[in-house]
Amino acid sequence: MAETLVKVDLNQSPYDNDMVHNRWHPDIPMACWVKPGDDFILETYDWTGGAIKNNDDASDVRDVDLTTVHFLSGPVGVEGAEPGDLLVVDLLDVGAKDESMWGFNGFFSQKNGGGFLTEHFPEAQKSIWDFHGMFTTSRHIPGVRFAGLIHPGLIGCLPDRKMLDMWNTREKALIDTDPDRVPPLAAPPSAPTAHMGKMSGDGRDKAAAEGARTVPPREHGGNCDIKDLSRGSRIFFPVYVKGGGLSVGDLHFSQGDGEITFCGAIEMAGWVHMRVSLIKGGVAKYGIKNPIFKPSPITPNYNDYLIFEGISVDERGEQHYLDVHIAYRQACLNAIEYLKKFGYSGAQGYAILGTAPVQGHISGVVDIPNACATLWLPTEIFEFDINPSTQGPVKHISGGVDVPLAPDR
Amino acid sequence: MAETLVKVDLNQSPYDNDMVHNRWHPDIPMACWVKPGDDFILETYDWTGGAIKNNDDASDVRDVDLTTVHFLSGPVGVEGAEPGDLLVVDLLDVGAKDESMWGFNGFFSQKNGGGFLTEHFPEAQKSIWDFHGMFTTSRHIPGVRFAGLIHPGLIGCLPDRKMLDMWNTREKALIDTDPDRVPPLAAPPSAPTAHMGKMSGDGRDKAAAEGARTVPPREHGGNCDIKDLSRGSRIFFPVYVKGGGLSVGDLHFSQGDGEITFCGAIEMAGWVHMRVSLIKGGVAKYGIKNPIFKPSPITPNYNDYLIFEGISVDERGEQHYLDVHIAYRQACLNAIEYLKKFGYSGAQGYAILGTAPVQGHISGVVDIPNACATLWLPTEIFEFDINPSTQGPVKHISGGVDVPLAPDR
Amino acid sequence: MAETLVKVDLNQSPYDNDMVHNRWHPDIPMACWVKPGDDFILETYDWTGGAIKNNDDASDVRDVDLTTVHFLSGPVGVEGAEPGDLLVVDLLDVGAKDESMWGFNGFFSQKNGGGFLTEHFPEAQKSIWDFHGMFTTSRHIPGVRFAGLIHPGLIGCLPDRKMLDMWNTREKALIDTDPDRVPPLAAPPSAPTAHMGKMSGDGRDKAAAEGARTVPPREHGGNCDIKDLSRGSRIFFPVYVKGGGLSVGDLHFSQGDGEITFCGAIEMAGWVHMRVSLIKGGVAKYGIKNPIFKPSPITPNYNDYLIFEGISVDERGEQHYLDVHIAYRQACLNAIEYLKKFGYSGAQGYAILGTAPVQGHISGVVDIPNACATLWLPTEIFEFDINPSTQGPVKHISGGVDVPLAPDR
Amino acid sequence: MAETLVKVDLNQSPYDNDMVHNRWHPDIPMACWVKPGDDFILETYDWTGGAIKNNDDASDVRDVDLTTVHFLSGPVGVEGAEPGDLLVVDLLDVGAKDESMWGFNGFFSQKNGGGFLTEHFPEAQKSIWDFHGMFTTSRHIPGVRFAGLIHPGLIGCLPDRKMLDMWNTREKALIDTDPDRVPPLAAPPSAPTAHMGKMSGDGRDKAAAEGARTVPPREHGGNCDIKDLSRGSRIFFPVYVKGGGLSVGDLHFSQGDGEITFCGAIEMAGWVHMRVSLIKGGVAKYGIKNPIFKPSPITPNYNDYLIFEGISVDERGEQHYLDVHIAYRQACLNAIEYLKKFGYSGAQGYAILGTAPVQGHISGVVDIPNACATLWLPTEIFEFDINPSTQGPVKHISGGVDVPLAPDR
Repeated sequence: MAETLVKVDLNQSPYDNDMVHNRWHPDIPMACWVKPGDDFILETYDWTGGAIKNNDDASDVRDVDLTTVHFLSGPVGVEGAEPGDLLVVDLLDVGAKDESMWGFNGFFSQKNGGGFLTEHFPEAQKSIWDFHGMFTTSRHIPGVRFAGLIHPGLIGCLPDRKMLDMWNTREKALIDTDPDRVPPLAAPPSAPTAHMGKMSGDGRDKAAAEGARTVPPREHGGNCDIKDLSRGSRIFFPVYVKGGGLSVGDLHFSQGDGEITFCGAIEMAGWVHMRVSLIKGGVAKYGIKNPIFKPSPITPNYNDYLIFEGISVDERGEQHYLDVHIAYRQACLNAIEYLKKFGYSGAQGYAILGTAPVQGHISGVVDIPNACATLWLPTEIFEFDINPSTQGPVKHISGGVDVPLAPDR
Repeated sequence: MAETLVKVDLNQSPYDNDMVHNRWHPDIPMACWVKPGDDFILETYDWTGGAIKNNDDASDVRDVDLTTVHFLSGPVGVEGAEPGDLLVVDLLDVGAKDESMWGFNGFFSQKNGGGFLTEHFPEAQKSIWDFHGMFTTSRHIPGVRFAGLIHPGLIGCLPDRKMLDMWNTREKALIDTDPDRVPPLAAPPSAPTAHMGKMSGDGRDKAAAEGARTVPPREHGGNCDIKDLSRGSRIFFPVYVKGGGLSVGDLHFSQGDGEITFCGAIEMAGWVHMRVSLIKGGVAKYGIKNPIFKPSPITPNYNDYLIFEGISVDERGEQHYLDVHIAYRQACLNAIEYLKKFGYSGAQGYAILGTAPVQGHISGVVDIPNACATLWLPTEIFEFDINPSTQGPVKHISGGVDVPLAPDR
Repeated sequence: MAETLVKVDLNQSPYDNDMVHNRWHPDIPMACWVKPGDDFILETYDWTGGAIKNNDDASDVRDVDLTTVHFLSGPVGVEGAEPGDLLVVDLLDVGAKDESMWGFNGFFSQKNGGGFLTEHFPEAQKSIWDFHGMFTTSRHIPGVRFAGLIHPGLIGCLPDRKMLDMWNTREKALIDTDPDRVPPLAAPPSAPTAHMGKMSGDGRDKAAAEGARTVPPREHGGNCDIKDLSRGSRIFFPVYVKGGGLSVGDLHFSQGDGEITFCGAIEMAGWVHMRVSLIKGGVAKYGIKNPIFKPSPITPNYNDYLIFEGISVDERGEQHYLDVHIAYRQACLNAIEYLKKFGYSGAQGYAILGTAPVQGHISGVVDIPNACATLWLPTEIFEFDINPSTQGPVKHISGGVDVPLAPDR
Repeated sequence: MAETLVKVDLNQSPYDNDMVHNRWHPDIPMACWVKPGDDFILETYDWTGGAIKNNDDASDVRDVDLTTVHFLSGPVGVEGAEPGDLLVVDLLDVGAKDESMWGFNGFFSQKNGGGFLTEHFPEAQKSIWDFHGMFTTSRHIPGVRFAGLIHPGLIGCLPDRKMLDMWNTREKALIDTDPDRVPPLAAPPSAPTAHMGKMSGDGRDKAAAEGARTVPPREHGGNCDIKDLSRGSRIFFPVYVKGGGLSVGDLHFSQGDGEITFCGAIEMAGWVHMRVSLIKGGVAKYGIKNPIFKPSPITPNYNDYLIFEGISVDERGEQHYLDVHIAYRQACLNAIEYLKKFGYSGAQGYAILGTAPVQGHISGVVDIPNACATLWLPTEIFEFDINPSTQGPVKHISGGVDVPLAPDR
C-alpha cells in the first residue's frame, strides 16, 4: 500500500491534529512533502470533525457550529510546484474508514445555515446511511439502495496573498449589502474557531483572523461539491504558492448534483489515495482560471431516469429572469411532490435528492424570461417501480419511519 | 409509414399554412384529430419559418424579426383528452426534411435578442451545419464532427384561459420593472406577426393580441430546449383544454445543455413521428406541475469528457449569491478560452458549446456565496486530442475560416 | 440528400436488377463508381429478395430456396482503390424502405438449413416485426418492445481470384468429409440461381459456376452478421481487386449476438448511406487479415441485463472440449427455459434471443474441459419485470398467440 | 466493517488453513455458518496459494503444480438453505489484500497446461501488475493503464453426490478418448495434492481421491472466470446440499473475456465482501440449470473500442464447422498482429488481451461453415492512439522490456 501521510484519529479532536486545517491561507505550512509521481494516502475527518453522531437525534445537526468547518487534511507540498503550474491529481481511490462505515445527511435549521429548500424544510433533520461495501441504505428512508459515487467534496491548493485578499474583499462587499440576513450571504473570516494547521504564535493569530472560510467553491476549486470528482477522476489544479499546498476533506459517499441539502451528500470520514504530477506553466498554456477535470472511467451506471422540469417562476408564482437557481428548485420540488405519491414524506424525498446520484442539468438559459432546469432521478435506486403508469402510483412506502427532526430551540 | 398529418412546404410562407401557429392560446382550433394509441407524423418548419439561409452571410440572423417565432405544427387534438389528464407522447423518431439536409446556429445581435454570452459576442454571427446521415459538420468550424442528439426544442399542449392569463400577468410584471431594457426582460404579446392557425375574424384578432409568445418554457413545457427530449424519449404532458392540443416545432439536429447561443442549437426544418396515449387524471395522481419525461434508450454515447468549472463571480470579479446562471457562464467562458489555445476563434468555441452534446450540470448550489456549475465537453467530437498534456496545446486549427459576422447597422 | 446509386424496386425480381448480385466473384463488373470522400446511398432488397411475406403463414420460410441468397447491392468501385489498401467505410445511416416498415424473423426447417437450435425447433416458423420509428414490436410475441440496432448483416469487397479459389477449395474439403449431411456442412457454388450482376455470356456462366456463395463470413468480411456494424460505425475492409468492389445487403433492423435463428435477425429491405475513403497500403501497415471496425457512438443503451451461463456439456450430458458453440447453445437454452416461466412459448423465447440486442460473450475458453459462454438478456426490452424474486415468476404472457409454424411436407 | 469469517495468512501454506479447500466434494464440512441476510468477508489466497512471486523470473509459472489449484475459502453454510433453493449472493465489494498490492498474469508451458494460444506461445511467461488504487500497470508492458474490473474467477456451491459422480464420469469419458494428450483433455481427481478443508481420517482420503478438480466451470458455476461477476453484481446459485456450501477464490484484479492466457487474468490474493439470501425452491420456479446473474451498476466504462473479427478457418487455413473457439482465436491473433505494429511483442499483446477488459463476442454462429467471433479492444487503456489512420501506425513502444520467459527444461 501507498504510504499514509496524514492520519486522523476519529476519537481525537481535529484541533489536536496539526496536519489538519479549516481555513485557506497562503502561510499555512505544508503538513508534508511529496515528489511529482508519488502516490500517497491522506486520511480525513468528516467535514464537521465528528460533530454528527450515528443516532436518531438531529439535535447535533441543529446545534453544529458552522464556523468550525471544513476540517481538511494537508496541505501537501509538491516539490517543484510553482505558481502558474497545473497540479495534476489522480484520485486513485477513495474510501470510508474501516471503523466508520456510515455517513450522515442533514438539513440545517434556517437559523443555522439553511439549505436549498430551507423555506420548505426550515428545521434541522438528519438521516443516517450505512455502507455495505459499495452500496448504501438508510434506516430512515426505506426502499432506496444505491452504489456510492464516492468523492471528496472539497479539494484544492492554497491561495496566494493576492487571491486571498480578493476573496475576502468581494465576499465582504456582498455581506455588506445585507449584513443581518439569516442565513448570511457569505461566511466571513472567524478567528475563534480557526485551525491553522502547524502555524503558531502571532503569525497564526493574524492568519486566523483573515483566513478564508472553506465554505464556497472559488477559483482554486475548494468546496466545489462536484459529485463527479470521484475515484478515478483526474483533476488539474492551478498552483498559486510554491509547493502548491494541496488539501482535501469533506468526503462524500454519494451526492446528487447541487448537494441540495447543504449538510448534504452522505458525509463521512475516510481516506483519499492520490498521485500528483505537474504541468509546468500549465495555467498560461491552457488559459486556466478554475480547475478542469476528467471524470472517472468507473462510476455508477444508472441510466434509466425519470426527469423533472422546473422553470424560473418561484413557488409563489413570481416571475424571475433566467434564474437557473429558482428553476432547479422548482424541479426539485416537483420531484418531491412526485415521490410523496409513493408514500415518502417530503423530508425523505428531499434527502433522496441530496444523496442519490441525481443529475441536475442547466437545460435552457436563453428563452426569456424562463430558465429551464432538469432534475434527473435514477429509477434503478428504488426497490420498486416509480415510473408513471395508467394505474397510478402505488404507495410502496407505508410510513412509520421518517427523517428525525430536531425543532429549533 | 405512419400518416403525415401536417405537411409543410419549405417554399411556402408558414403564414399560408393554417396547420401552423406561432402563439399559445386556448382558442386555437385543432389542426387535426387523433385517437389514443395512434402514431402519426408532423412536418415542421425551422423555428424562423425559413428566414435563415444556407449561405455565408449572417445578415439574415441580424435582421430576423423575433416576433414571428416559433412556427409550430398543430395543435393536434387527442380524442378523450380532458383537463387533468397526462398526455403521453412517444417520440418514435425525428428527422430533417430530405430536401433540407442542413441546419444553422446563430448568435443574435445584442440589439435583437442577444444570447447567453451577448456581452462577449454582441453582433450577429451564423454557422451552417451539414448533415451526413446521423453526423454533422460545419464548413465554418473545422475539426469537429458529431452525431446528432436530434430533438424538438419546443413541444407542449395548449394552455387554458386561466393559465394564459397567469402567464401574461406575471411576464408583464417583470417587463414593467425595466420596460426599456435591450434585450427585453420578456416577450409580450405581439399581434401584427401572430399566426393563429385556423382562427379567423374578430376572435382571431382578439386572440392574436393576447396570445402568449412561444419564447419561454412554461408549466406546459413549451420551448424547453431540453436536448434530451430526443427521438426515443417518452414525455408526460399536463392537459389543460379538451383534446389537449399538442403542438411541436423548433427542431434541433443537436444542442448543448442551455442552448447558449439562443439562435441556438442546430436549427432545422424536419418531421416528428410520435405516438400518443393518455393517463386519465394523471396530473393529480402523480402531483404533476411541469411535464416529466424519460430519456431515450438511444443517444450519442460520448463519455470521455473534459469538464470546466465556473463559480458565481462574474467576469468583472463581482460576487453574486448562489447564481447558477453566472456560474455556468463562467464555465462556458473558461471552456472557450481553453479551445482558443487549440486555434479556434472565440466565436467558433461559442458555437461548439451551443451545438455539440455538451452537458451543463448544476454542481453545487448551497455553498454560500458561490454556486458551482460545470460544463462537460465531450472530447470525442474533436478530430484531434484536446486533453491537457505536459507538452501543452497544439494549434490544430490554423484559422482561415471563421463564423460569419454581420455588423450591426 | 446524398445520391442513391443503386435503387431497388420491391415489386421487381432482384434478378432483373443488374446492380444486384448474389455471389462473390472477382469478375463481377462494378455497378457504379465513386471517389474517395464521396457519400452515397445504396438501396437493398431483403436477403431473400422478397420471398418472405408479411403474413401469418410460415410456409414461405419453409420453402425458400436458400441457393438464391443473399441479394447484394453493388459492387461499388472506388477510384484509386488497389489491392492491399484498406477501404474505410462510414455507415452514416441505415434505414428501412418507406414502403416496407416491417421485417421478419424465421427458423428454417432442419431439412432446409436449420439453425442454432434446430434440434429443438426443427420446423419452419416465422415472426413478423413492425417498425414504429426506431422501435419494433411483433404481433406474434407480446410484451417485448425495443429500439433497433440497425445494421447490414453482409458487407465486404470482392475477392481476387486467389482468394476465391482458396475459399472454394477449403469449403469443398469440409463438405467432402460428410457430403450427405442435412443440413450441409457448407454451401457450394450453385450456378442455376446465381445472379452475377452485369455479367453476361460465357464469362457470366463460368463465373456463376464457381462464384462463392454469400452465406459464410470470410476474410473479406461478408456475411458476418455482426450486430455492432451499426449505423455510425466505421469499418476498415481489405481491398483485393482494383476498385475494391464494395457490396452490401442483408439489412437487419435488430439482431442478437450470434443471429441464432439463422433466418435470423429482423430481416428487412432498406438502404444504407455510406461514405468511403482509403488508407493506401493499409493492409500491410496494420497487419490486417480480416476487417476491423469501430462501433457507433449511437447504439441502444440497454444496460440492465440478466445473464445466463452455459458450459460445453451438451443437452444429452456429453462432455465436449472447450467448445464455445455448445456452451453458447446451453446458455441460450437456459434463457429460453427461464422465459417460459413467464408464459412465453419456447419458439417465442428463441425468437427474442435472435432479434433483440442480446449479447453473447465468450467468457472462459481455457478451463479444461469446459468453455463458458454467457448470454446477456436486456431486461428493459420487456414490458414487465423479468428479474428473479422471492415471489417467483409471474405469468405475464397468457398464450393465445405464438410464432406461426409450417410443418414439413 | 462486516465480520471476516475466513482469514488467510499469505505467509502460511494454504494447506495449513482448514477453512480453505481445493476440491469439490459434498462431504467437505462447512468452514463457518451464516444466516440469510448476513453480510461477511472472506479472505482468499491467490489461486495458486502463493506459488507465483513478484519478480522477473517466470520459472515459477513454468514449474507450478497445477494439481494444487484452486485454493478456495469456505465452504460457507447458509442456515435454511436446502437443495433446490437459489442462493442469492450480492458481491458487495472485492479487493486485494493491503499487504499484496500486485498480481500476476502468466502463460503456462505447453507441457504444463498450455493456454488458448499455446501453439504460438509454448513456453512459460509471466507479467507482474501493480495496483494503484483502482488502476493497474505492469513494468513488463509499457503504455497500458486501466481500471480493474475486479471479480472472483471461481465461486459456487458444493455439488451433491449425484452431481459429483456425473462430473467425474463424463470428464473421464472425455479423457479416455485421448488419455496421453499434452495438455490433457480434462483434469481428473488427484488425491496427493487435495486439500479437503476440515475433513480428516479415512473419509477425507476417500473424498480426496474422488473430489472433483476445480478447473472447469460446471453446472454449479465454479471456475467460470466471467469478468462481469464483478463487485456489485448479484448471482443466483443453485443449492445442491443442505446449507449450500458457498466457496470462493481465484480473485482477479482484471481479465478479458475468455481469460485467454489461462494463468490468466491478473491473479491476486484478496477478499470478498458479500451478502447472502435465499429464494426457496427457486431452481424449479425459474427453471435454473446454471447460475444466472445481474452485472454490477459500477464497472469500468471504456466504450471506445477497436474490434477485430475472426472466422473459423484456422491458422493453417483449414476450414472448421461453426467453431467459435477457433474463430475467437483468429480474432485474438489478428489483434496481436495489429498491436505488434505499434511496437509490442507478441507476448505483450497476448498478455494485454488476457488482462484488460476486452470483450469477446459470439457474433455469428449460423452462417455455415464459418462462425464469426469478435474481440473488442478498448482503445482508452492505451496511453497513445491505437486507431488506424492514413499515416499508418506509430511505434510508440520501443522495446527494451518484455514479458519474462522461462524456457522449458
